[in-house]
Amino acid sequence: MNYVLHEYAPSGNCYKIRLTAAHVGVPLERREYDIMKGETRTPEFLSNVNDNGRIPVLATPEGLLPESNAAIWYLAQGSDLIPTEPFAQAQLLRWLFWEQYNHEPNVATMRFWRAFVGEDNLTELQRANLPAKVAAGEAALKLMDDHLAARRFMLDDRFSLADIALYTYTHTAEEGGFRLADYPAVSAWLARVAAEPKHITLDA
Amino acid sequence: MNYVLHEYAPSGNCYKIRLTAAHVGVPLERREYDIMKGETRTPEFLSNVNDNGRIPVLATPEGLLPESNAAIWYLAQGSDLIPTEPFAQAQLLRWLFWEQYNHEPNVATMRFWRAFVGEDNLTELQRANLPAKVAAGEAALKLMDDHLAARRFMLDDRFSLADIALYTYTHTAEEGGFRLADYPAVSAWLARVAAEPKHITLDA
Repeated sequence: MNYVLHEYAPSGNCYKIRLTAAHVGVPLERREYDIMKGETRTPEFLSNVNDNGRIPVLATPEGLLPESNAAIWYLAQGSDLIPTEPFAQAQLLRWLFWEQYNHEPNVATMRFWRAFVGEDNLTELQRANLPAKVAAGEAALKLMDDHLAARRFMLDDRFSLADIALYTYTHTAEEGGFRLADYPAVSAWLARVAAEPKHITLDA
Repeated sequence: MNYVLHEYAPSGNCYKIRLTAAHVGVPLERREYDIMKGETRTPEFLSNVNDNGRIPVLATPEGLLPESNAAIWYLAQGSDLIPTEPFAQAQLLRWLFWEQYNHEPNVATMRFWRAFVGEDNLTELQRANLPAKVAAGEAALKLMDDHLAARRFMLDDRFSLADIALYTYTHTAEEGGFRLADYPAVSAWLARVAAEPKHITLDA
């Protein structure tokens, strides 16, 4: 079986897939696109990889899979990273959906705007949205902090895909201007996730 | 088994859960909150139902489940609505994540702003975001239209949770100012979904 990850390596959504693959022991071939140069909006990319113009896309022997959380689900099926009990599995998905709706659009977007685009290069509309993104990112980190105050991992004592999905953009939150020291339970959890066997770093 | 849906009935995210429950034959008790009056931001709601201040939340015998797509996954586990083959299951999740990231924040938000809040009552920031929301909503509907041009359902010939999740805010897209006649494959698919046995309407 051969997997190709179409990616932009610094993206947390792409790192999620590499991190999951490392945990389950699946080798990935990597194909790099520079999103800062529009390489995922070319006609070739749109017709051959993803008509949504986004990375990551995981190419599997069965076909293409866009959406990072769908790709990590695919790789982790049958492993300890996905609980099989119905309620625990739904709780895991609850965090994956929350990550894409409440966390990524704020915590990851702030990192992208501040560390990649640069605050001076933001459009007027992006600048207008900045305060709301900061507030929503802080609310997301606070909700995680409250949740993790009495738990080792997002699903209590069990390390799961929810930890992997939330780790990637949380551990780079300071590049977006958030102060992780304000979230001590989150900071302790980040260290626990990074100490898991088979963990790899963003630049691995 | 007793399920209580904490909801605001006109919300498409809440309708998703009622529609899934109807398809799998699970009775739901319903508890209504008026989000226009802030009833999901009261201290009672935040501490007893969802600290994220959002509906829907599905109360199950095993605990509370926020996030509409996690709730429908929970209800549909073991049914025909969720394929068990790994790639098909990941494709289903791909559409559920795409719905929450690319479709709902645009198509549903435009409906909320235009049909519930009213365009005259929007904040300056909401008004500034309007053109981008319209463009992103149109792009989402166009992507679905292209996908459905040669398919009966989102997962080819199989009616699944992806159809339910995408139906609810797509069938009310005109309330947000989108013209469904511009998306003929989407329009034909809406009619097929509504013709499925056990379908219920938003106001059922």
